[in-house]
Amino acid sequence: MGGDFAPASEVGGALIALSKLGRDVEIVLVGREDVLRAALDKHPESKGETRLSVLHAPDVVTMSDEPSSIVKGRKESSLYMGLDMMRRGDADGFVSAGNTGGVMATATMLCGRIPGVSRPTIGTFFPTLTNKPTLVVDIGANVDSKPRFLHDFAVMGSVFAHLMLGIERPTVGLLNVGEEKSKGTEVARETHELLSNSTVNFYGNVEGRDILKGTVDIVVCDGFEGNIVLKFAESILTFLKERFKAYANRGLLQKLTIAAFRPVLRKVLSGLDYQEYGGVPLLGINGVVIIGHGSGSPLALSNMILRAVEVVRKDVNGTIQRALHEAAQQKDLP
Amino acid sequence: MGGDFAPASEVGGALIALSKLGRDVEIVLVGREDVLRAALDKHPESKGETRLSVLHAPDVVTMSDEPSSIVKGRKESSLYMGLDMMRRGDADGFVSAGNTGGVMATATMLCGRIPGVSRPTIGTFFPTLTNKPTLVVDIGANVDSKPRFLHDFAVMGSVFAHLMLGIERPTVGLLNVGEEKSKGTEVARETHELLSNSTVNFYGNVEGRDILKGTVDIVVCDGFEGNIVLKFAESILTFLKERFKAYANRGLLQKLTIAAFRPVLRKVLSGLDYQEYGGVPLLGINGVVIIGHGSGSPLALSNMILRAVEVVRKDVNGTIQRALHEAAQQKDLP
Repeated sequence: MGGDFAPASEVGGALIALSKLGRDVEIVLVGREDVLRAALDKHPESKGETRLSVLHAPDVVTMSDEPSSIVKGRKESSLYMGLDMMRRGDADGFVSAGNTGGVMATATMLCGRIPGVSRPTIGTFFPTLTNKPTLVVDIGANVDSKPRFLHDFAVMGSVFAHLMLGIERPTVGLLNVGEEKSKGTEVARETHELLSNSTVNFYGNVEGRDILKGTVDIVVCDGFEGNIVLKFAESILTFLKERFKAYANRGLLQKLTIAAFRPVLRKVLSGLDYQEYGGVPLLGINGVVIIGHGSGSPLALSNMILRAVEVVRKDVNGTIQRALHEAAQQKDLP
Repeated sequence: MGGDFAPASEVGGALIALSKLGRDVEIVLVGREDVLRAALDKHPESKGETRLSVLHAPDVVTMSDEPSSIVKGRKESSLYMGLDMMRRGDADGFVSAGNTGGVMATATMLCGRIPGVSRPTIGTFFPTLTNKPTLVVDIGANVDSKPRFLHDFAVMGSVFAHLMLGIERPTVGLLNVGEEKSKGTEVARETHELLSNSTVNFYGNVEGRDILKGTVDIVVCDGFEGNIVLKFAESILTFLKERFKAYANRGLLQKLTIAAFRPVLRKVLSGLDYQEYGGVPLLGINGVVIIGHGSGSPLALSNMILRAVEVVRKDVNGTIQRALHEAAQQKDLP
């Protein structure tokens, strides 16, 4: 209910997902029943769909609500009730286009962490010049991360990239200001040391330019710089669109030129549209949580649901637990 | 001598600059005399130019030299000898397209800081959707900056934007992961508090997306995230060029389409070419230092020289000293 186009995108997304999923998957729409029923009525194909049900939640968490306040004061919200279903074991996964910080905080408090995880994290995919995206982790869930947290982000990212993207031994780069291990903040230098002697396939330091270049499969960083780079990256498309628009406004010839070129631009720039990647995992939570852009389309929501199903089926969380156990056995982690 | 196209760009740039400067400015080319004389011979207009002279420096610092080693071991390098001229008072400013870290470290050690400055810094301009660029400071000179350092970056950036860009009361934003003052790292929160009660025109926190949007005149951040964002930003042009090239390679029609739109692309994307801004100031050094991209063209070098002359004439350093003195009087700085 907390997404920008809720519940139209959510209801539409659930129906698209069901059309691609087998009989063994059920989707529960959590939110205000009257609103959800009205949205379902617009989809004749939902009639008689036995895999779809509604759980009434009278309250809605908005984007401006304080994340930490939800567990205590918003127990009748769709966000809380959906995550609580998962805590009780009545659901295997949870998908939301709502308040990201709220989902993160509530999921952590209700479901706890996977044993061995120091801090849960959120990663996101960046487009690259190679044929596979780079997973940047963390993109804002944690600030002032200690080296041990960054180590765990690296392990969790590696498991995710291995199971979900099919990369045999994903390479991990540490986001820094230079290649040498002596570079960067105190935390970055300690993390370099920790990752150098870890179970992950550590490439070494990478720089800002290596993200789009696709130098490594996973870029590990604190959520402070991760969030800053992500928001900078998301703003590029708007920047370029405005520049092309300003060019078109110079005169008729320029307007026609840009109009003729629009299909090419759309194609080439689509890789910069972060919406396309629809849904990123919350890693380290003792439960499967996929969160996406508030303005997600029905297609984006359906991709998030399909991704959640895949995370459950491939036992990403169990694998993370085993990987961190193995890392701890090999080395005394700080 | 340390630039990628040295000394051709430097010699060419000096001659362009002299053609735009009055009789009261002299330029000294510091480097290997034979190489410089040979480069000058390619420019007939340099004959009889009394404002141009050569100071022989047998050694050259390269991009891979360790910055901190230059003061001790490279006293015959063009980098050291040029900065030493300034230290002795024989030059008012120093311009280089060489090893940035080397210039920073050597200038700090030889010339010292402007009284009151906690840490010298390097800023750079980012293009924006408004008609003026945003100055991001620091972009890599300092990591693990304390709030007091970030405060001084804000003051120095404000003086520079006021005197050099003619902005009456430049607005300062603190790069962070959210607008609220409670957001971000411990350092970010303390800096927010410090800037809120300072002499600078503090806008509040800004996010990654605000840089290209041009929300504020100056974005203050630690050199760790500043450098990461800068290198990410510099990689966008390469990324887009490769994407357009890949599109062109799909077939003849696509190749012709891209060829037809090349002039438009060049025009629109030029704002993303950081070379265009030619030269950023090293702020806080007791001397005027302008550094630029290693691959700078003669035009870029001439712009750097003109900028150095302007920084001297407008007494940017004297104004920084007075502004920090005023800030310290208004409030006990940490």
